[in-house]
Amino acid sequence: MRTLIKEVNQNSKEKINIQGWVFRVRKLKKFSFVIIRDYSGYIQCFLDHNIYHEEISLESAVSLEGYVSLNKNDYADYEIQITSLIILNKATSQPMSINQIEIDASLDTILNHRAYSLRHQKNQAIFNIQNTISNTFRDFLRGKDFHEIHSPKIVSQGAEGGTDVFALDYFGQLAYLSQSPQFYKQMMVASFERVYEISQVYRAEKHNTSRHLNEYVSMDLELGFIDDEHTLMDLEEQYILYLLETLLLHHQNDISLFSRSIPTIKDKIPRIPFRKAIQILKQEYGKENDFYDLEPESERLLCLYAKEKYQSDFIFITHYPRAKRPMYTMPFGEEETHSFDLLFNGTEITTGGIRIHDYQALKNNMLYFGVDPNKFPMYLEVFKQGIPPHGGFALGLERVTIMLLGLKNIREASLFPRDCTRLLP
Amino acid sequence: MRTLIKEVNQNSKEKINIQGWVFRVRKLKKFSFVIIRDYSGYIQCFLDHNIYHEEISLESAVSLEGYVSLNKNDYADYEIQITSLIILNKATSQPMSINQIEIDASLDTILNHRAYSLRHQKNQAIFNIQNTISNTFRDFLRGKDFHEIHSPKIVSQGAEGGTDVFALDYFGQLAYLSQSPQFYKQMMVASFERVYEISQVYRAEKHNTSRHLNEYVSMDLELGFIDDEHTLMDLEEQYILYLLETLLLHHQNDISLFSRSIPTIKDKIPRIPFRKAIQILKQEYGKENDFYDLEPESERLLCLYAKEKYQSDFIFITHYPRAKRPMYTMPFGEEETHSFDLLFNGTEITTGGIRIHDYQALKNNMLYFGVDPNKFPMYLEVFKQGIPPHGGFALGLERVTIMLLGLKNIREASLFPRDCTRLLP
Repeated sequence: MRTLIKEVNQNSKEKINIQGWVFRVRKLKKFSFVIIRDYSGYIQCFLDHNIYHEEISLESAVSLEGYVSLNKNDYADYEIQITSLIILNKATSQPMSINQIEIDASLDTILNHRAYSLRHQKNQAIFNIQNTISNTFRDFLRGKDFHEIHSPKIVSQGAEGGTDVFALDYFGQLAYLSQSPQFYKQMMVASFERVYEISQVYRAEKHNTSRHLNEYVSMDLELGFIDDEHTLMDLEEQYILYLLETLLLHHQNDISLFSRSIPTIKDKIPRIPFRKAIQILKQEYGKENDFYDLEPESERLLCLYAKEKYQSDFIFITHYPRAKRPMYTMPFGEEETHSFDLLFNGTEITTGGIRIHDYQALKNNMLYFGVDPNKFPMYLEVFKQGIPPHGGFALGLERVTIMLLGLKNIREASLFPRDCTRLLP
Repeated sequence: MRTLIKEVNQNSKEKINIQGWVFRVRKLKKFSFVIIRDYSGYIQCFLDHNIYHEEISLESAVSLEGYVSLNKNDYADYEIQITSLIILNKATSQPMSINQIEIDASLDTILNHRAYSLRHQKNQAIFNIQNTISNTFRDFLRGKDFHEIHSPKIVSQGAEGGTDVFALDYFGQLAYLSQSPQFYKQMMVASFERVYEISQVYRAEKHNTSRHLNEYVSMDLELGFIDDEHTLMDLEEQYILYLLETLLLHHQNDISLFSRSIPTIKDKIPRIPFRKAIQILKQEYGKENDFYDLEPESERLLCLYAKEKYQSDFIFITHYPRAKRPMYTMPFGEEETHSFDLLFNGTEITTGGIRIHDYQALKNNMLYFGVDPNKFPMYLEVFKQGIPPHGGFALGLERVTIMLLGLKNIREASLFPRDCTRLLP
C-alpha cells in the first residue's frame, strides 16, 4: 500500500512504501541521499549502497520501502531509511535540468519537452493555481445553481462576425471552430436561465506575440432575468473575492515562488464609467486616450489609479462606447452601452455586459453594425420566444493565470500551447 | 428582489416578486390561472383581469408581484395572488407545444428549435441528470487529488491511428481535431500522476445512426503508479456507486419521468474475463461469438447474465484480446491484455486498461500493430523520461446519459448535436 509523501507521519513505526520520481541524488562513498518527489511533495531518503548500489538516473520512477527516522533536512524533520528500492521505469533522457529554482532552457525547449518540464516546481505551481482558478469559478457558480453547458465547437458561422476563424470541411459543408460560446450561452439562458462553460475556443489570429494563443480556455457565464450590469459585476466581484480567499488559504507558497503576493481588494472593486476614465487619464496622468477604446497604456494607468486611490488591484470600467462593443450589447443612450471590462494588474481580463433581448432591437442593432440578420436565423428566432433580459461575461483562464503570477508569456500558462507555428506536442 | 419558485414560503405574508416563463394559461371570464416556470420549479398564479387583461402568450418571460395564499393545486398547496404583472419579453413564436407530458414533434424539429424545446420538463431532466453525471465524476476525482487538464483539440496527428479525423488548415500546416485525449493524458501522468479531462472530442465517422455523434463529451482519467487494471475498476466502481447515490438523492423524480428506476449493484460489479464471457454466452444462451470482440447482442446477453446471476446492472469484461485493443495497451501474455470494458444496460460505456510504460516495449508494440513510431516522437520520448506504470479509462457523457434514461437517440442527450448533416443550430 503506497503512502503519499504528504501523508508520511514522522512518528510512524511501520515500514512504508513511497513511489515517485528521483528528484536529486547526492552520492557519498557508502550511501546516498535521494530526494523523491510525488505529486504531493518531496522527501529525503537515506540509501545504503549495500541495499542498492547501481546508478540511479534522475527522474526515474521508483518504488521504495523503508522506515521513517528523525533527521532534520531541507524537506522535513524526518527522512526515510530505505530498506529496498525498485526502479519502475528508468529515465534515460533528461532534456533539461528541472531540480533547480529556475529551468535553464529556452521556452521552446521547455514546451517541446512538456511532460518533462511540467514536473518542475514552478510549473507545478502554475497549473495547480490554474486548477484553483477554474475550480473556484465552477464551485462558485454551482453554488448559485448555474447549469454547465457544452456548446458545440464545430459551428456553421463565427459567433462574432467571422474573421480570424479556423475553417474545416464538415462532410462537404463549410464549418468553423467556435471563437466563443456567446450565441450558445445566450440561447441556453432561454432554457436554463443560468449557464456556464469552461472550454476551449479558437482564434485564427496571426499575431505571434507573448499574449496570444490560438486555442485557449474561456470561462463563460450567462445569466437571465437581470436588467443591470451591476448584477454581473457584483457576481464577478464575489467570484474574485472567493478566488483570492482560496489562494490565500492554499497557494501562498506557490505564489511566493513567483515573488508575488496575492492581490487585494479593499471593500469593493471600484466601478468607473469609460467617459470618467478618459478624464482621469488626462487629469491625473496627462494621458490622451481616444473616445472609443482604452489603449494598453491607459489600462495600465487606470490600474495604478485604482491601487492608489482605492487600494484595489482590480477596477471595472463601465459604459463602453457602443461603436466598440459587439452588436448584441445592450445600448445605453445613443453612444454608450450597458457593458464593462475588468482590469487587473494593468490588463483587461474580462469583457461583459447586458445583451439585447428584444427581437426587433437586436435586428436593428445588427443592421446598425452592418451584420446581416439572415445569417443567424437560429440565433435570432430565440429572441421571438421569450428569452429573458440577460447578460454575462467571460474570463480567459490562461490570461488570469499569467496576470496573477506575473508571467511574461501566455504559453507558460497553457499545458500544450497552440500558436501560429506550434502544433506539437 | 426576485424570489425563486423553489424558495416561495407558503407562510409568507410579504409581497414577493416572481420571474419566469408563462407555462400555461387557463382563462376564465374575470380571471385567469397562470402557471409560471422558472429554472427551479412551477407555481400557480391567480390573475384578476382588472389587474392585467391582455392576452398573455405562452413562453413569454414575465415578472409579477403578489401574495402567497393557500389553495391546493397541481403544483403546491398555495398559489400567488397577482397584484401586478409585467411582460419582460413577449413570445411571438411557439415552434411546438412544450407544456404537455411529451413533445409532439419530430426529433429534427426539436433539435432545430433547441432553445425552446429544452424548456420541456423531460429535456430539463435529461440535462440536469447529465450535469450530475459529470459533476459527480469531477467531484469524485477532485476528492482524490486528480488534476484537471485541458489537452489541445487541434493536433498534428490522430491519437489512435488517423482514420475518421476532421482535418483543417492550421496556418499552412495540416492539423486534425483530436479524437481522444489519450496521448496527452498519458503524457500528463508523467507530470501530475493523476489527471482527468471532461471535454469534447471529434470523430469524423460517416455513420448517421442513433448511436453516433461526431462531436461528443469524453470524461477521461489517467492514473500513475499503478500496475493492475483492478485498481482502475475499483476506482470506476466507486465512481458509479457515488453517481447512483447522488441520483437516488436528487433525481428520483427526473428519472421517473422516463419510466426508469435507478440502476443497482449488489455488493460489487462482477468482473468476467473475455474468454470466460465467450463460454458463458455459448453455455447459457447458445450464442456463438468470435474470439476477438463482443457483438452488440453478446453485450446485451452478458448484461442479462450479470443482472440474473449477480443482481448487477453493470458488468466488467476483462482481458480483452490483444488484437482488438489499441497499440498502447499493456499485453497480458501473447494474446490478452490488461484491459476492460464496462457494460451497462446492454452496451459498453467504458473502455480502459493499463498502458505500456516501457519505451522499447511500446515501440515494439507499435511495430506489431503496423504503426510507425517515427510519427509520434514527442509522445514516445516521454517513455524515456521515467513515466510511471499507469492506466486509465473514459466514459462518453452522452452515452451514459442515454443508457441511464433509456433514450433511443443519442442526439437527445446533446444540447446541440453534430452529425453528418447537422451543423445548426
